[in-house]
Amino acid sequence: GVLGSGDFARSLAVRLVCSGFKVVVGSRNPKRKASLFPAAAEVTFQAEAVKKADVIFVAIFREHYSTLCDLADVLAGKILVDVSNNTEINHHKESNAEYLASLFPACTVVKGFNVVSAWTLQSGARDGNKQVLICSNSQEAKRTVAEIAQVMGFTPVDMGCMSSACEIENIPLRLLPAWKIPIFLALGLFLCFFTYNLIRQVIHPYIREQKNKLYKIPIEVVNTTLPCVSYVMLSLVYLPGVLAACSQLYYGTKYRRFPDWLDQWLQHRKQIGLLSFFCAALHAVYSLCLPMRRSHRYLLIETAVKQAMEKKMTIWVEEEVWRMEIYISVGIIALGLLSLLAITSLPSIANSLNWREFSFIQ
Amino acid sequence: GVLGSGDFARSLAVRLVCSGFKVVVGSRNPKRKASLFPAAAEVTFQAEAVKKADVIFVAIFREHYSTLCDLADVLAGKILVDVSNNTEINHHKESNAEYLASLFPACTVVKGFNVVSAWTLQSGARDGNKQVLICSNSQEAKRTVAEIAQVMGFTPVDMGCMSSACEIENIPLRLLPAWKIPIFLALGLFLCFFTYNLIRQVIHPYIREQKNKLYKIPIEVVNTTLPCVSYVMLSLVYLPGVLAACSQLYYGTKYRRFPDWLDQWLQHRKQIGLLSFFCAALHAVYSLCLPMRRSHRYLLIETAVKQAMEKKMTIWVEEEVWRMEIYISVGIIALGLLSLLAITSLPSIANSLNWREFSFIQ
Amino acid sequence: GVLGSGDFARSLAVRLVCSGFKVVVGSRNPKRKASLFPAAAEVTFQAEAVKKADVIFVAIFREHYSTLCDLADVLAGKILVDVSNNTEINHHKESNAEYLASLFPACTVVKGFNVVSAWTLQSGARDGNKQVLICSNSQEAKRTVAEIAQVMGFTPVDMGCMSSACEIENIPLRLLPAWKIPIFLALGLFLCFFTYNLIRQVIHPYIREQKNKLYKIPIEVVNTTLPCVSYVMLSLVYLPGVLAACSQLYYGTKYRRFPDWLDQWLQHRKQIGLLSFFCAALHAVYSLCLPMRRSHRYLLIETAVKQAMEKKMTIWVEEEVWRMEIYISVGIIALGLLSLLAITSLPSIANSLNWREFSFIQ
Repeated sequence: GVLGSGDFARSLAVRLVCSGFKVVVGSRNPKRKASLFPAAAEVTFQAEAVKKADVIFVAIFREHYSTLCDLADVLAGKILVDVSNNTEINHHKESNAEYLASLFPACTVVKGFNVVSAWTLQSGARDGNKQVLICSNSQEAKRTVAEIAQVMGFTPVDMGCMSSACEIENIPLRLLPAWKIPIFLALGLFLCFFTYNLIRQVIHPYIREQKNKLYKIPIEVVNTTLPCVSYVMLSLVYLPGVLAACSQLYYGTKYRRFPDWLDQWLQHRKQIGLLSFFCAALHAVYSLCLPMRRSHRYLLIETAVKQAMEKKMTIWVEEEVWRMEIYISVGIIALGLLSLLAITSLPSIANSLNWREFSFIQ
Repeated sequence: GVLGSGDFARSLAVRLVCSGFKVVVGSRNPKRKASLFPAAAEVTFQAEAVKKADVIFVAIFREHYSTLCDLADVLAGKILVDVSNNTEINHHKESNAEYLASLFPACTVVKGFNVVSAWTLQSGARDGNKQVLICSNSQEAKRTVAEIAQVMGFTPVDMGCMSSACEIENIPLRLLPAWKIPIFLALGLFLCFFTYNLIRQVIHPYIREQKNKLYKIPIEVVNTTLPCVSYVMLSLVYLPGVLAACSQLYYGTKYRRFPDWLDQWLQHRKQIGLLSFFCAALHAVYSLCLPMRRSHRYLLIETAVKQAMEKKMTIWVEEEVWRMEIYISVGIIALGLLSLLAITSLPSIANSLNWREFSFIQ
Repeated sequence: GVLGSGDFARSLAVRLVCSGFKVVVGSRNPKRKASLFPAAAEVTFQAEAVKKADVIFVAIFREHYSTLCDLADVLAGKILVDVSNNTEINHHKESNAEYLASLFPACTVVKGFNVVSAWTLQSGARDGNKQVLICSNSQEAKRTVAEIAQVMGFTPVDMGCMSSACEIENIPLRLLPAWKIPIFLALGLFLCFFTYNLIRQVIHPYIREQKNKLYKIPIEVVNTTLPCVSYVMLSLVYLPGVLAACSQLYYGTKYRRFPDWLDQWLQHRKQIGLLSFFCAALHAVYSLCLPMRRSHRYLLIETAVKQAMEKKMTIWVEEEVWRMEIYISVGIIALGLLSLLAITSLPSIANSLNWREFSFIQ
């Protein structure tokens, strides 16, 4: 049974029908709404729909839950699936599912399907990897809903009892939470190093020698800043592991919880490492662009003309040649190794490695 | 039970035995064929095999289905799994599975396993992500076969009733259908812009000033063409969304179906975007190669010699320097952002993002 | 039931409780250990724990299996899940699970969960793609444990009967076995070609003309070596397919097993191809770095000065210009095509292609 006639209710009905379930839709105005649903789904009045179904998807807004109170008698003993989402994180004091459960104490409420969008329900039918998080206080009801999810082509994930509902409802609202701290960290580091390099490469020569080097800002200053950020980020990936080991040695046990800041840090290592790789890759591209620039061309020609007018044939400095060859060579190897690390952090590849292989590559 | 002794039948029998099922193989010449099958599978005459099994995989060609008619009596009431494929899309008027069902009205026919190759069956036993599409008019038979698929390590996907059989049989024959239109579009755009740039950079200077610039064709003309294609493709990714919004505003409803061309366009956005990224990446590589060319070296030396002979020390043009620095800088940032889009379109990463994160990145 | 109180036992108990199971932990010193386990798990003496549970996870070292012998009577008829790992491949003559089965002939032993780390158990609860390999001589016990794994959010994979236990126990110990031969092959080829190029580009000019070209070693010599390795590796990807076809034509059958060396070779093609792509990509980066080098700059200026002093205006060699333009152009196209091959070898993309699409791209 499906209560509601919005986008989500319709997509849910379509998918349930396609998966071979008998679907009955409860609406306040079944005649007007029937055309929106697939022909195989029976559209009728809410009370009648509830009577015919054992599992009822409540696809209406939290604000309208109380309108269902008239149906309390027919709903008694049925499994109610709360599929609702909020518009803000922790908008209400109790989760939608817990609120629904408090309105209908005679029903078994299961939270689920809220992480799936109406669009996925309708069109993505063939991707069995999409997870549906489910929680409920009743093991049996949870298992029934999990089976429905599986037949519909999703992977049900048991999230325990009803107190997890709040967490599940917040999931579609989160915005890359693991990335926030690393990104602000990278931006902060970038700003610091950029200012330092700006002073060193542009402002200082201008004040001391009145040389106008402003053209260096968009590429050269950025290009000397990026590897600094990359290096510091890379060291921040490996530092917390050392601190954790020290903490374990100091307290003489590995069962003591790390302090919160260290725990957070340990959990953000992957993101910090990927940003370090991103900076290193950008640095490579910037460096490769250096000889394409007009300024590079002009400086080269000016040096050549100067040499020619002074009749100096040779300009070769063995030490500088070697330094550059080795810089570039080591840089390429470092980038190659970082690429391997980045590739193994792709979920589909990380899943195919065992622990020993993963730590070997790291 | 498995009927047939081809590659597929053998691989199927191997996998079923490995997954702990009791397998009986029906062959016309059990003695000669027994050596091809694993020792744990019993190879016997067709009629006997059918008698012993409840679920029978029909691993023979459609052309030979009629040879099974002698077994109609013993087959009655059993579940027949049609695993056959066609050699052409919509080769026959009705799907193989429907044809099999019409020959044996007393059996329950299930279509399935045709999307799995014999090779996957035998060697890929450990990848649980491979999907097996199943359809049948009987819910119960479908569920039985789905369970077998699951135990064999596949992810069964319910595709509804028998009328989907035709669609399922066409799947192994399709050849990147979502890519055809975008690729021809990209090729068409490339040809147009290439012709325009060829005329502008090579033919026009030749006619007007008799200058031979043919050497520009392989790299420089291609390199000015690629970003044009990339830009137009990128705009074609975002245009249909705007058109769709306009259409919804015009008709005042979001439940009206879009016209077919717009619908197709909306569904090809991912492919168009990836091709746009591919062109942009190629443009970056081509640009980076510019200073490596012999022609670049010769032009540089010639300019230097000319300057030296005219005793002109300075050649610096501030405006040109700035233009180039900004071009390159903006180009790198654009490529970096496009790379992020391309990475989030990898299936394993897209699956781990929720709708809000996905649209934020877009 | 869980026997043991190490890291793995604790993580297992946490996950089982979270998935809605009733958990009883058996320990020798339940009072001291109780604080380590979640509150919802009952921690008691071993004998008592065993009595209350039907499925018992034996999370203790193989060396201590014999200490359980006192419990043989209470254990009779229960399902024992062996989750142990070894520290070396094939350390003991028989697998841990078989050893456990021999100690407790009245129990049904199932091997499983050893490929999952304690860390995955505790924190990775939401990734349904992680596989749990299971084997046992009893179909029923296997199915029970598989269901538990599924409810815990893992994908159970049936590996057949107990004789596979040894193989399953070796999985967490393997270290990229498919990569070993291809990597040594690539290193060997690199060394050969590097020596050849070193002699040709550095040692020979030194001996013949006393020219010091040592600065070429880190970049130029490596850069001429990489494409040679890449070419040879690429040909080694396609050669075994031809050999296999010849072998089939020669013997007139496709059911004859290939010789072992050819079989191994055929199975390493993907890794060899990826290493070929890696070398080609490195070659591209090295080549792009050439004009960034100080040596390139010096040679350019020296040529310009020489030209200026000899009053020679023109240095253009049409043939050399064309050769370079075509080299670079073809190189970019080849790298683009190789990139497509590399991208389609990502597991999540390869899974979404059918056989016809895969072979079309190859």
